[in-house]
Amino acid sequence: MAQQSSSAKPMPMLKDELDIVIPTIRNLDFLEMWRPFFEQYHLIIVQDGDPSKTIKVPEGFDYELYNRNDINRILGPKASCISFKDSACRCFGYLVSKKKYIYTIDDDCFVAKDPSGKDINVIEQHIKSLLTPSTPNFFNTLYDPYRDGADFVRGYPFSMREGCKTAVSHGLWLNIPDYDAPTQLVKPLERNSRYVDAVMTIPKGTLFSMCGMNLAFDRELIGPAMYFGLMGHGQPIGGYDDMWAGWCAKVICDHMGWGVKTGLPYVYHKKASNRFENLKREYNGIFWQEEAIPFFESVTLPKECTSVQQCYLELAKLVKEKLGKVDPYFIKLADGMVTWSEAWDELNTTP
Amino acid sequence: MAQQSSSAKPMPMLKDELDIVIPTIRNLDFLEMWRPFFEQYHLIIVQDGDPSKTIKVPEGFDYELYNRNDINRILGPKASCISFKDSACRCFGYLVSKKKYIYTIDDDCFVAKDPSGKDINVIEQHIKSLLTPSTPNFFNTLYDPYRDGADFVRGYPFSMREGCKTAVSHGLWLNIPDYDAPTQLVKPLERNSRYVDAVMTIPKGTLFSMCGMNLAFDRELIGPAMYFGLMGHGQPIGGYDDMWAGWCAKVICDHMGWGVKTGLPYVYHKKASNRFENLKREYNGIFWQEEAIPFFESVTLPKECTSVQQCYLELAKLVKEKLGKVDPYFIKLADGMVTWSEAWDELNTTP
Repeated sequence: MAQQSSSAKPMPMLKDELDIVIPTIRNLDFLEMWRPFFEQYHLIIVQDGDPSKTIKVPEGFDYELYNRNDINRILGPKASCISFKDSACRCFGYLVSKKKYIYTIDDDCFVAKDPSGKDINVIEQHIKSLLTPSTPNFFNTLYDPYRDGADFVRGYPFSMREGCKTAVSHGLWLNIPDYDAPTQLVKPLERNSRYVDAVMTIPKGTLFSMCGMNLAFDRELIGPAMYFGLMGHGQPIGGYDDMWAGWCAKVICDHMGWGVKTGLPYVYHKKASNRFENLKREYNGIFWQEEAIPFFESVTLPKECTSVQQCYLELAKLVKEKLGKVDPYFIKLADGMVTWSEAWDELNTTP
Repeated sequence: MAQQSSSAKPMPMLKDELDIVIPTIRNLDFLEMWRPFFEQYHLIIVQDGDPSKTIKVPEGFDYELYNRNDINRILGPKASCISFKDSACRCFGYLVSKKKYIYTIDDDCFVAKDPSGKDINVIEQHIKSLLTPSTPNFFNTLYDPYRDGADFVRGYPFSMREGCKTAVSHGLWLNIPDYDAPTQLVKPLERNSRYVDAVMTIPKGTLFSMCGMNLAFDRELIGPAMYFGLMGHGQPIGGYDDMWAGWCAKVICDHMGWGVKTGLPYVYHKKASNRFENLKREYNGIFWQEEAIPFFESVTLPKECTSVQQCYLELAKLVKEKLGKVDPYFIKLADGMVTWSEAWDELNTTP
């Protein structure tokens, strides 16, 4: 493991409280562009696919790298809950991190520029979003009221202006938008060039599509629900890893009274994935999401669930019961959720 | 009434289907700046305060103007539901309009510029928002999926991509933000300079602050719920007119399965109102909104209510029952809602 550099750069925010998790199958040359922003943070690299392959990490980064052999060794039989040949494997990084915050990014995402031409410091923006409260109970038309130059608008109840804890900060993408395979096939040339200068809380009771490409969260709060499911090798579905985690996490945040923000910061996304391959991977998900979303919309967690772990196990039970009827895959997935939860407790219980 | 000009300018969108409603107490010099955008539309001017005063309207605009004497003459005893000495009087304009769409604007709002320096065509943007569907049932992280260059993101259920009808388009303000009196007192210098290039649907089940300064709606759909309440002269409250209409309209849109959009377009707001006066007017509302909002959040309209009128009368009944306990004002307001509804039917029933 490389040692942390002792450069004279300005101290990055929460340097010792945030890990950057990167799932990959290739050399991490993309980190060169991120050097000014990532160099002082600790990286957790989760190598997907053939563990005998060597992943090159540019000099000067402080990292630990786990391949499939490491995952099997560390988790033993519980390694079955970690996906193989799918970026869902990234959640192993959340499991082994010891930090309060996680930022996770895909290796085909690069530094974007804001409209003034300045490089966007993604981690700084995510941290700002996570450290300021959320407002899931009433929509503020001027967006995040805690940003500089913004506030609560007229008519916003004063009793709600303290907000609540922010558990998730979901960032967006310029250039290649995060479209599903059918949309990629229909609109191969569509690029996102609209920089929307906003952060906002997704209201309570509303689901969204959580993309894992550019995502930060408070691991101490919502980590146990950030399981990216069983995807890829040996599974009838791929690419729905982040969606699954997002639906679970949102329902649990709503129950716990925590907020999920979306909007800034942007990364510049150069798609590495093939849209025909994506259709193969997503195929079953296109049908299943039509059942899964009404399920998540209707889920009510019992009052007795007062921790994320309790909520998550309850959710796993409901997934098995209700979605198990849609396809036996969901029974396996529910079992994976339970195994994940056990692994979380095993690795994250303070002795 | 001035005749419509027959200029050679490009045909404005929905020229014969939209009225612009302006409440005012002063000469409408502000229209000079709006000439290129408003000149080909019909204006309904609602003169507030002393009816003997003459309001000057710049040459070349096609308008009808109503003062208090006109309101009393047209509505007879039902005129009691129209506020006096408060911009709430603007809803009289919605009542007498015969058009499908309404755009309403305050006379201290001017043409704003987009970041490229181009004058913003507010009506064009509102109409685009109203003519494209809304997506209240699932949050699209790339905002309005019907805008050029945008679409539904991965994980958005395909069964929900038809969206639903859009009833309301709520625009925003650069320069002076729409803050309540306490915030104006605390932050007298705060200006909004953040241009957020987004339109979005406010999710189902979530309330927001609807500001009447820069607002468009489908009058045929939601007009009967766009009552701006009893405010100002003779009432214990002022300035909550648009908020009240917004809470009522949102609850009814949610029940009817229609959408409310917010975001673009911006106007440039130069505040004409005094923050100490605002505190006087808003004072009771600061307390009452803490009761009114939980009330609206908990309202469930019965399935039997299949028209906006039915919903609105049911809502009036509930306001009397539940909020009448907070203050007798709400009993009067509920009666005003019923009178408004009767007046709407009287003036809007096709013979």
